[in-house]
Amino acid sequence: MRVEAAVSCLLFWAVGQVSGETPCPFPPTRWCSNQQIARECQVLHQCLESRPLEPAEPVQISLYYESLCGACRGFLVLQLFPTWVMLNNVMNVTLVPYGNAMEKKESGKWVFSCQHGPDECEGNMIEACLMHTLQDHYRYFPVIFCMESAADVIPAAQQCLKVYEPNVTWSEIEKCVHGDLGSQLMHRNAELTAALDPPHQYVPWILVNGKHTDELESQAQHSLFNLVCSMYKGDKPQACLLSEGRRSIPRCMAA
Amino acid sequence: MRVEAAVSCLLFWAVGQVSGETPCPFPPTRWCSNQQIARECQVLHQCLESRPLEPAEPVQISLYYESLCGACRGFLVLQLFPTWVMLNNVMNVTLVPYGNAMEKKESGKWVFSCQHGPDECEGNMIEACLMHTLQDHYRYFPVIFCMESAADVIPAAQQCLKVYEPNVTWSEIEKCVHGDLGSQLMHRNAELTAALDPPHQYVPWILVNGKHTDELESQAQHSLFNLVCSMYKGDKPQACLLSEGRRSIPRCMAA
Repeated sequence: MRVEAAVSCLLFWAVGQVSGETPCPFPPTRWCSNQQIARECQVLHQCLESRPLEPAEPVQISLYYESLCGACRGFLVLQLFPTWVMLNNVMNVTLVPYGNAMEKKESGKWVFSCQHGPDECEGNMIEACLMHTLQDHYRYFPVIFCMESAADVIPAAQQCLKVYEPNVTWSEIEKCVHGDLGSQLMHRNAELTAALDPPHQYVPWILVNGKHTDELESQAQHSLFNLVCSMYKGDKPQACLLSEGRRSIPRCMAA
Repeated sequence: MRVEAAVSCLLFWAVGQVSGETPCPFPPTRWCSNQQIARECQVLHQCLESRPLEPAEPVQISLYYESLCGACRGFLVLQLFPTWVMLNNVMNVTLVPYGNAMEKKESGKWVFSCQHGPDECEGNMIEACLMHTLQDHYRYFPVIFCMESAADVIPAAQQCLKVYEPNVTWSEIEKCVHGDLGSQLMHRNAELTAALDPPHQYVPWILVNGKHTDELESQAQHSLFNLVCSMYKGDKPQACLLSEGRRSIPRCMAA
């Protein structure tokens, strides 16, 4: 005999998970990414509430990196992704996997050589193909974080895609990785990296609002959260403040 | 013909990933978790540098929650985990999956009933078993984040374990989930939840340094990062400050 729980859930943030209902089929990092998903997941009110009152230009963070460089993984996993999760309503992230790689045209095709070997070239290519295939950073950034934060980056890719994008097949990504499309995408990353002014001297090479200085790089690597909060010109979002008043609290109630 | 890249990587933060070397086989979230791993991943210097100079008691955050409650997933994924990733040297996290569930003894065994149905009971049990099996929060929190941030929590569990703990078999977790051990662990969570003073009225139910108030709950849900920075009594860690001076920058150099 099952114990019958007489319980109810407040409408908002219930996220359609009351027993018997179809659960909201989106990762929480996507709930506020557009109004349709917010409505479907019953979080529209919270998403609107968490927006800055007087929005300004988002802070632009660009990361030129390599998929297997330890310092790059450290920055992406321990600063960039967690900051973006909390501040994505006031910041934009651009990821350019290539870094200190090199390219050469052989028999009409681009051939790439990477600082940390062929595995790194594969990791860079998988991440470039994920970005191209999934398009929306709310979709691809969790997958790339999952890879970079894994025990072993490359074997994790397929699992990470299943976790966050169960409807996208691995073969679709693989086709891009081993085909002309991947090659074109990586060549574009080579061009973007070569066009850096001043040229990059190391990776991770971080641009803040399009600009690189050693001081910005250091601040980004050690306290990105506060850097983004301080650089955002608009009304500060809730996450940047320690609100004193009581605000609405998303919750599931016991009966 | 491969283009030979004449490149080198600074010793620190190289994380053993120069082509041909054995890569550091740990997720970045574990690199500073103990000195042995930090040495193996060649990041000891950075880990020591990022510690507070005069350490004080860590801020304790306890989360009483349910694996499928939308508001719980929102807090765990969008505030608690990203804050912990950046501030785990000054905070401790305790996770108690149970919430508004109920238990009843039948034929000498505990039977559980969960607010969001049997799937939630399974999710709670998987997470309790992950914590028991992996012991160290640096090991289990990334796996639990991965589940809670996935498109579909329960099916993600096995993939998430593979990503972060490739040496732990899923069958070991399953044995706990469906055996007496899981039952005992969940009964303990029921006891911990029932012992809350004041009793919980909803989930997520958050304690800050062992204390719950509506104001602390609201601050935790909207700006946990700043709450932890402000409550930490010791020397503030780098992540809580916007450092003005230039600090060492982890990097991989091009030759």
